[in-house]
Amino acid sequence: MSELRFDPIRKRWVIIAPERKMRPFAFCERDEAEEGECPFCEGKENLTPPETFAIGPSNREANSPGWRVRVVPNKFPALRPDINFEIGESRYFKILKGFGYHEVIIETPRHDYPLWERRIEEIRDMLIAIRERIKFFYQDVRISYVLLFGNYGRGAGASLSHPHSQIVALPIIPEIIENEVRAGRTHYLKNKRCLICDILSEELKSGKRIVTQTNGYIVWEPYASSHPFETWILPENHECDFSVLDNNELKKTASVLKETLLRINKFLKNPPFNLVLHTAYNLKYATKNEKDIVRNSYHWHFEIISRMSHIAGFEWGTGININPVSPEEAANCLREVDL
Amino acid sequence: MSELRFDPIRKRWVIIAPERKMRPFAFCERDEAEEGECPFCEGKENLTPPETFAIGPSNREANSPGWRVRVVPNKFPALRPDINFEIGESRYFKILKGFGYHEVIIETPRHDYPLWERRIEEIRDMLIAIRERIKFFYQDVRISYVLLFGNYGRGAGASLSHPHSQIVALPIIPEIIENEVRAGRTHYLKNKRCLICDILSEELKSGKRIVTQTNGYIVWEPYASSHPFETWILPENHECDFSVLDNNELKKTASVLKETLLRINKFLKNPPFNLVLHTAYNLKYATKNEKDIVRNSYHWHFEIISRMSHIAGFEWGTGININPVSPEEAANCLREVDL
Repeated sequence: MSELRFDPIRKRWVIIAPERKMRPFAFCERDEAEEGECPFCEGKENLTPPETFAIGPSNREANSPGWRVRVVPNKFPALRPDINFEIGESRYFKILKGFGYHEVIIETPRHDYPLWERRIEEIRDMLIAIRERIKFFYQDVRISYVLLFGNYGRGAGASLSHPHSQIVALPIIPEIIENEVRAGRTHYLKNKRCLICDILSEELKSGKRIVTQTNGYIVWEPYASSHPFETWILPENHECDFSVLDNNELKKTASVLKETLLRINKFLKNPPFNLVLHTAYNLKYATKNEKDIVRNSYHWHFEIISRMSHIAGFEWGTGININPVSPEEAANCLREVDL
Repeated sequence: MSELRFDPIRKRWVIIAPERKMRPFAFCERDEAEEGECPFCEGKENLTPPETFAIGPSNREANSPGWRVRVVPNKFPALRPDINFEIGESRYFKILKGFGYHEVIIETPRHDYPLWERRIEEIRDMLIAIRERIKFFYQDVRISYVLLFGNYGRGAGASLSHPHSQIVALPIIPEIIENEVRAGRTHYLKNKRCLICDILSEELKSGKRIVTQTNGYIVWEPYASSHPFETWILPENHECDFSVLDNNELKKTASVLKETLLRINKFLKNPPFNLVLHTAYNLKYATKNEKDIVRNSYHWHFEIISRMSHIAGFEWGTGININPVSPEEAANCLREVDL
């Protein structure tokens, strides 16, 4: 059974997950990959655990063909919902039993059909599935945060090549989200405005790190990008919560996501990349005051990082990434891509 | 020129280093590697920048053969000493010009001679070079922290196969060190004892995460290990500062380092790995009170991580690592290696 353990020295959580079924000589994620039949292709629904959500015709039977997007539990989950939520604490060590959810979003029934080649409606359907799962998980009082992430390409950690992303519902708020929330809160309490809104309004003036502004979104290379061509997609109008977007709005989101990945893919020639969604933590059970602050100070966004540089000893030892490409150069390159 | 930029949203530093000479289609570190002559071999001293330190016979001329350990500036530095130390700040963004030092420690004149095969005295010489460079850098009031790290094997980010490690002297205290210092300080102010000493004394009682206790050192798999077989080497007796160790003590350190890497290497069959040294930050210019607290509460140590798992979207999006091997299992495996 996996465990969330809190490191008393470095003050951070890790997940110890022996259930990921990795053995000393088979650590790479790719070793999980079945090389034969793809369990995510249409018609192979029996090769996955039963679906938890799907988009398709209303007369379709669960776990049968005909779906456009399908969500299933991860076969090698980092966290599981059938574990009692339980906190343990000894003198120095804090532990949470591995309660949570870990699901796979099968983005399309077609095996060789990357996101940037899909029709806007198909990408929108994937975003609808993400929205619905976030809403579902946030009903659960034990869930504090839901992370959507995609690993595309082997170099980005993908185990199966069929387009899929993953969603993990956690009983804690992860450190990076907490940092973002804290920075936003501090700025908001002082200025009564959102930090990211304020930064973006300055950034739009200079324009040098802006890739594009379209369909209600700003595509931005952050000032302190950790990776080459790190790219954020942020709603122009302040909103803390991805899951409030309606289907019409998600069509615009889909269009910007497609265009941005097309730019990256054209310029960098099909790089492995990770996509993550940062949205507000679970506010359903928060106090009114906390809700007000987070709603006004957190700004949801997508982050895309292309995986062309290695994390090595320096990054591990310091927490500081070395990025050989300035965001100004990256923005310039991506802006000029011929779509 | 490189820059240290502070991220106002995620509250962390990154180094933007276009001087690392990586171009969009040549991002991997290995692309830097000269495939012809090895610039780190004995007799090729003219292929590196002039040495800043070396260990060898007293009558040896600088930059000529005969050395046992040689330290040279990195040809592709992340930070450079010939830049004015300068802090810039705009409304939201903080920046430090890329001042610092980035050197390479050529650990041995022999090309195919990994650390665990070397004689204890040869490893001790490498540790002496590290100690001397730390002492040298900490004379500089502009330097806040020195990190020693080694990337061994391509999978760990090594660009050249000749055994070498790197040392970076930074004008800031990195986040991970700051977290360690803060945790230690909080515990010390409350208990008047070192957090790591206290944890180790409990850990020795149970023994389940201890690999070995030898030569004045404890080899430990941390309770919240972020990586499979993450291994720490810590002095049994409290000490905050690696650079105070004399040559005799470093011989013991060398012996433990050799034994530990031998265990990892034998069990995991030659994995790529990173080694980092965490020692106290520059206290030369600190107040007496600060010095007292850090000296009593920080505990220097080596960290070794084997690079068998990938950092992917989940880790990037949360800051939480998923580790498929429990430290108890790892300690058990390493303890039983036949040396």
